Amino acid sequence: MTATDMHPLRQKLPEGTVFDDLDVLEAHRSDRATFCPAGTPSVLVRARSTEDVATTLKWAHENRIPVVPQGARSGLSGAANAIDGCILLSLEKMDEIVEIDAEEQIAVVRPGVINGVLAAKVAEYGLSYPPDPGSRSISTVGGNVATNAGGMCCVKYGVTGDFVRGLEVVLADGRVMRTGRRTAKGVAGYDLTRLIVGSEGTLGVVTEVTVALRPAAAQPLTAVAFFPAIADAARAVAGYLGEGYRPSVLEFMDDPTVRAVQRIADLGFPDGMAGMLLVQSDRGEAAPGDLAAFERVARSFSASEVVVADNPAEGELLMQARRLCGDAHENMGLSLLIDDVCVPRRRLVDLVEGLGRIAERHRVQVMCAGHAGDGNMHPVVAFDASDPDETVRAQEAFDAIMALGLELGGTITGEHGVGYLKRRWLGKELDEAGLWTQHAIKNALDPHNILNPGRVLPDPGCGDFNENQRADFH
Amino acid sequence: MTATDMHPLRQKLPEGTVFDDLDVLEAHRSDRATFCPAGTPSVLVRARSTEDVATTLKWAHENRIPVVPQGARSGLSGAANAIDGCILLSLEKMDEIVEIDAEEQIAVVRPGVINGVLAAKVAEYGLSYPPDPGSRSISTVGGNVATNAGGMCCVKYGVTGDFVRGLEVVLADGRVMRTGRRTAKGVAGYDLTRLIVGSEGTLGVVTEVTVALRPAAAQPLTAVAFFPAIADAARAVAGYLGEGYRPSVLEFMDDPTVRAVQRIADLGFPDGMAGMLLVQSDRGEAAPGDLAAFERVARSFSASEVVVADNPAEGELLMQARRLCGDAHENMGLSLLIDDVCVPRRRLVDLVEGLGRIAERHRVQVMCAGHAGDGNMHPVVAFDASDPDETVRAQEAFDAIMALGLELGGTITGEHGVGYLKRRWLGKELDEAGLWTQHAIKNALDPHNILNPGRVLPDPGCGDFNENQRADFH
Repeated sequence: MTATDMHPLRQKLPEGTVFDDLDVLEAHRSDRATFCPAGTPSVLVRARSTEDVATTLKWAHENRIPVVPQGARSGLSGAANAIDGCILLSLEKMDEIVEIDAEEQIAVVRPGVINGVLAAKVAEYGLSYPPDPGSRSISTVGGNVATNAGGMCCVKYGVTGDFVRGLEVVLADGRVMRTGRRTAKGVAGYDLTRLIVGSEGTLGVVTEVTVALRPAAAQPLTAVAFFPAIADAARAVAGYLGEGYRPSVLEFMDDPTVRAVQRIADLGFPDGMAGMLLVQSDRGEAAPGDLAAFERVARSFSASEVVVADNPAEGELLMQARRLCGDAHENMGLSLLIDDVCVPRRRLVDLVEGLGRIAERHRVQVMCAGHAGDGNMHPVVAFDASDPDETVRAQEAFDAIMALGLELGGTITGEHGVGYLKRRWLGKELDEAGLWTQHAIKNALDPHNILNPGRVLPDPGCGDFNENQRADFH
Repeated sequence: MTATDMHPLRQKLPEGTVFDDLDVLEAHRSDRATFCPAGTPSVLVRARSTEDVATTLKWAHENRIPVVPQGARSGLSGAANAIDGCILLSLEKMDEIVEIDAEEQIAVVRPGVINGVLAAKVAEYGLSYPPDPGSRSISTVGGNVATNAGGMCCVKYGVTGDFVRGLEVVLADGRVMRTGRRTAKGVAGYDLTRLIVGSEGTLGVVTEVTVALRPAAAQPLTAVAFFPAIADAARAVAGYLGEGYRPSVLEFMDDPTVRAVQRIADLGFPDGMAGMLLVQSDRGEAAPGDLAAFERVARSFSASEVVVADNPAEGELLMQARRLCGDAHENMGLSLLIDDVCVPRRRLVDLVEGLGRIAERHRVQVMCAGHAGDGNMHPVVAFDASDPDETVRAQEAFDAIMALGLELGGTITGEHGVGYLKRRWLGKELDEAGLWTQHAIKNALDPHNILNPGRVLPDPGCGDFNENQRADFH
């Protein structure tokens, strides 16, 4: 399709909304996932209103055209990758903060608002919007809702879904639905809000989000602990939380990750450690006691060094180390496959030890950082994609990590979502009745399977979705 | 049906599971809702295992027999009332605490476990299970899950659904499904856990619940404040929370309620006040400061008396006043219609003032107590049911209160559920696309409409469900 061969949506949508220039389409073909195919879209719609979204979906529904909703395309599971012939439906331009109600402690935003922009705005009112995915400075609230994104704050404050009170959603056929409420509680009918949260654009397109805010917490205090044995770092996590502490951050980084960070910003961390924990408490006057307890627990698990930041600014510097993990891994010049398993906290030790065995068996590098306090870790397989054999081994290691997560009583994805990348693994995590139910809901709400088809769930009727997932994709 | 006319389920289920004695059936016909019809069941199944539930549903599905799941029948919306010819499926005997994992801070329980029994048990481990509906000493975790029950703790800790990590659910056709996870986070597929929570037995029957626990909080400190003007009490709620305080309890009682409580237990509360607030802080050393701030705010809203309990025991005595509200209302010798509206906090003042106008207009007594911190109030219409005219006026007042709740930007039910009582109001709260979606999900998961039909949603295909709801019921 070219600009002269006018796309039918051009007549239905406002000027400056429909794009079919090849370079624009090319630039919007994929998110940040590795190993996920990206098809060739027919058109990009940059919606500026709920009506634009409704018009697009109504037309797509009538014409059986797949629609791939997109936010900032910062996702890591391929849920925003183009499908051949699809409409890319970008919500980025719907970036209005509609309302901040400081007294009720809620905000109403359009899906394209950047998470960090919302967080900064509500801070002006002495409030906070806790969900803080690592992508917070670039990812949109709509995308966060689509994946039920987590972050470092979750260990104390919960995930995106815990802050979503209500949604405006455009259904597959273009009808507009409001779910949920503005009030603190409400049980009127099935919880469609939570059904849509995390559904990765497969059940409806979110056009407005009402989120709960909290009073801003006190400036956090920060500490780090270094462990000569990685297993001890993992055990210290369960040990500290098991004593009843509720830190606002409790993160893990292994030594290869720390060294990668040091290469882009020398934070003076010691060499030769196996793992590091980073903890924060935002409980004001109680924070020093929380960190003293952390130091005691860390030392009881053989930490060789514990540093408690003297002031919030120094703590912020330590936090930079964690925030730089992603850049540091990317800076290594290798391709990355980023896992997202979440295991019971006491199994963290089995997870980190298992990662070592997987790296050895598949002869690839596996690094690890993550939200240890939640048991939600991001093992990263780093490999040379120009080496076909190594690439296969990397994929095998990636799969082995998910298998290990399930074996340890965990889940294949704590916060990144299933997308395309892990959909065949969904069939391993869910039981038959659960998969049937997921399909039944999808079929009921999107009978023509136009909404992000082939993501989260395999295509209906495609038979064994644990094998040959790619075969049914194109 | 009589005992000699053997019910077919008797051959399929273990001995001592199937009951059709008329007196047993009669004793299980209804929950605690007012104005909800209770039909005549054909049989009562007291399930003792997931298999019993699966066998029952499979048979009911094949034979198109309605099934009404029951816990302790302490619900207030008629969701557990019998339907003519139905199977009453009691989960009360499935009351095992399967596991308490103190390190992971989770518990796995069968649905018949009494909320208070679970709370007491986890307290032995230094943990807490916060959801605390007023019925906590008699209601079951399964029933709490079915209604997404709230309670006094919600203002700080959230509702039942916020603590449910995973479920075992028997689907309409008898298949068994596991939803969710044991881990802190997880986004693998649609959130079926939150879809089932609050679905009042209409989408599946819950046979096991995995709940998150928390470290036990510090002993709370308690204060009460008395206000000569009810509107000032309401304004003080928004004022205190608006300053960023997060009390563990923030309850309201109006003067008629306080006086009703005083009649069954003299707590020495002053006469002639319009309303009372009761607040707790469980923040340990920070609690006295929280309560001092409450006193300051209350006095700034013209509180005439503020009492801060000197110690936890004295505070517990004050809490008794709130816990006795239900008994106190019942002790008045009148019939009661208990509302459950939830409004934005700043509209509490409009709600309590509106209640006065509704009482006047419909010439019935309307008392009010509730979870003011959440904006979730339980206005109670007290009336003489032997007077047909007054009964009609009571129903009108009950409806007027829900209309007021919606008008104020709230919901018809904050925590009691829709059940039978409010299902025609669901159509006023939800929009057309939302109602369609609710029906689509119900139809997908329960195609023969055997699971608690006519509850939450009107019967499919019954047309205008806002009128004549009773006509399509029997």
